[in-house]
Amino acid sequence: MTIPNNLPVSDNGQEIYKILYRHNFDDLAIYFQEYNAKTSRKCCIVSDSHVASLYMEDVNTMASEYFNKVTQYVFPEGEASKNLNTVHDLYVELIENHFDRNDLLIALGGGVVGDLCGFSAATYLRGIKFIQIPTSLLADVDSSIGGKTGVDFDAYKNMVGAFHMPCQVYINTNTLTTLDERQYYAGMGEVLKSALIKDADLFTYLLNNKELIQAKDTEAIQTMIYRSDLVKKNVVEFDPKETKGERAKLNFGHTLGHAIEKYMNFKCLHGECVSIGSTIASIISFNKGYLSQDACNSICKYIGEFMQVPKLPEDIDIDGIINLTKNDKKADGKLLKFILLNEIGDAIIDTSVNDSDMKKAFETYMKDWNK
Amino acid sequence: MTIPNNLPVSDNGQEIYKILYRHNFDDLAIYFQEYNAKTSRKCCIVSDSHVASLYMEDVNTMASEYFNKVTQYVFPEGEASKNLNTVHDLYVELIENHFDRNDLLIALGGGVVGDLCGFSAATYLRGIKFIQIPTSLLADVDSSIGGKTGVDFDAYKNMVGAFHMPCQVYINTNTLTTLDERQYYAGMGEVLKSALIKDADLFTYLLNNKELIQAKDTEAIQTMIYRSDLVKKNVVEFDPKETKGERAKLNFGHTLGHAIEKYMNFKCLHGECVSIGSTIASIISFNKGYLSQDACNSICKYIGEFMQVPKLPEDIDIDGIINLTKNDKKADGKLLKFILLNEIGDAIIDTSVNDSDMKKAFETYMKDWNK
Repeated sequence: MTIPNNLPVSDNGQEIYKILYRHNFDDLAIYFQEYNAKTSRKCCIVSDSHVASLYMEDVNTMASEYFNKVTQYVFPEGEASKNLNTVHDLYVELIENHFDRNDLLIALGGGVVGDLCGFSAATYLRGIKFIQIPTSLLADVDSSIGGKTGVDFDAYKNMVGAFHMPCQVYINTNTLTTLDERQYYAGMGEVLKSALIKDADLFTYLLNNKELIQAKDTEAIQTMIYRSDLVKKNVVEFDPKETKGERAKLNFGHTLGHAIEKYMNFKCLHGECVSIGSTIASIISFNKGYLSQDACNSICKYIGEFMQVPKLPEDIDIDGIINLTKNDKKADGKLLKFILLNEIGDAIIDTSVNDSDMKKAFETYMKDWNK
Repeated sequence: MTIPNNLPVSDNGQEIYKILYRHNFDDLAIYFQEYNAKTSRKCCIVSDSHVASLYMEDVNTMASEYFNKVTQYVFPEGEASKNLNTVHDLYVELIENHFDRNDLLIALGGGVVGDLCGFSAATYLRGIKFIQIPTSLLADVDSSIGGKTGVDFDAYKNMVGAFHMPCQVYINTNTLTTLDERQYYAGMGEVLKSALIKDADLFTYLLNNKELIQAKDTEAIQTMIYRSDLVKKNVVEFDPKETKGERAKLNFGHTLGHAIEKYMNFKCLHGECVSIGSTIASIISFNKGYLSQDACNSICKYIGEFMQVPKLPEDIDIDGIINLTKNDKKADGKLLKFILLNEIGDAIIDTSVNDSDMKKAFETYMKDWNK
């Protein structure tokens, strides 16, 4: 597969931003120069304590050459920081430094940084520009496309948020070398999901290139990120605000994934739970006569043997987890829209999946694949 | 002037909502029925303590007939409530009542209620629908069009916000009968502004119908609200997010108006300060050779003699107020874009207005019109 070094993303037929695929931060200079060409402007680099310790200096040095003023806002790493208090403190930082509508926020980090910085950009002065510099695989393939921003509210994930597009996404694949293994394979959960719902060739690529993927080979990484982004871009461009149903297909693996995530008290990573959810959804797809036995096995084997998903407790309360899916149901109207696979690369929305379908497939998963 | 009973507002060429002009709440039933036709839904009526005491029962009774569940969220009246704490409490109310993306918020009240409820709707679950039932003249002609929502942050007005369109605006002009005189004339400040920048016929109408306006005659009220809304609709449709400059014309009277508002520690109402700012901007327009002496006098006289603007202190610090306009400047880039009148009904954006232009006109105002 030959992979372009950028991917344009449009809204309503109009290009809004490009995702750039690079191996270093060098081209940020070009972007900063262009952005700042007209007049002296300010930027604020928003990051978490972990990512800041790795990359803040590089990005800050580069920004300082082109912006009139560069400030930094760093918060403690982890989902616990993704709340309105952190947003509040960021507003204060921006106000104290007289940020106006022409200034820029830079989200340097994983999904938490991107979501929080994006929401702050969406709501400060009714919206200012921001760019994303994702540093995790999950952020590369998920949170950096589609304009969803938000923070958690009490125990509720992403309860408060807005749709707000970045004006640039700069992916430096080299940052993945500092990502720990578990986070890396969790990110692959979303890559695999994209392949399964829309891109059979990508699934074949993932099957055939396990060693390169494991070794974080630059070209392999770039290939899977680009192809995965392409799937999401096409869905999001067609259904930007989840009003047409099409965007629901991106929730493949997520109905049970979210429920498992909650049941495990967020001790498993989001991407890991999505992978488990994808396995069970594939088994349901087979049980319902859509997916072939071979295809289903191929998916289960890839996830179960290659993707290092955590082992669920043997005494897991399957009924309890199925009950937790009712929240997803509620959030989407009154009907549970379950995403199944007609075949690999072809997702369908099914409203007939009931509790016993889920339970049966979950039991198969626990017996055959929970290792 | 014959006035239609509704005004459609579009975004990107597509109709987003209608503003309905009515004399009672009867037609709300039709809307509620339509909105709720597909499935059982919930709504939350958001209001302040003052407006709730007047109209909550009516609206609640009507909503209860058509919605599965109706909740109310009432906060203490006044600008002091327009902050993130109130939004936070409203989120809690919505979460506790399991509001999802298909449910509806109803903003029943003036600008504070509309701005706060709109911002909550914009950010709860990344955006849910809301309708506006404005109950003040200012809300009828200003905050109910254009999709600007927001709250104050510390001492900064509307610092945090979002663009989020209502799905309906229901103006019951009869609610203005309970509006106190001062609020009524303050609202007229924005009506007059719309006339001055875009609609010379409306200005003539305002001049010729002082008695009817004073008596809050239903037809006169509806005429001035509709014509004023029409001006704002046309500007906002052309420049929805203040990126083309055209929307800046709506800031006529606001540069000095905001500064006076701040200088007076918000003891004068927003609309009153806009009226004073409009007078001074008209004098600058005359001094710079745009507006005729007659037209300028006609404006100053209308505001000074009919509109009951408060008298500013004789020892007011004009230089201090002019300094306060620098904040507006900052928020709009580096150049002060001052809105002047070429003639009545024709606003222009002027970047040559300096401190001494403002001072000279302000002194004329204090001498001739501050009574």
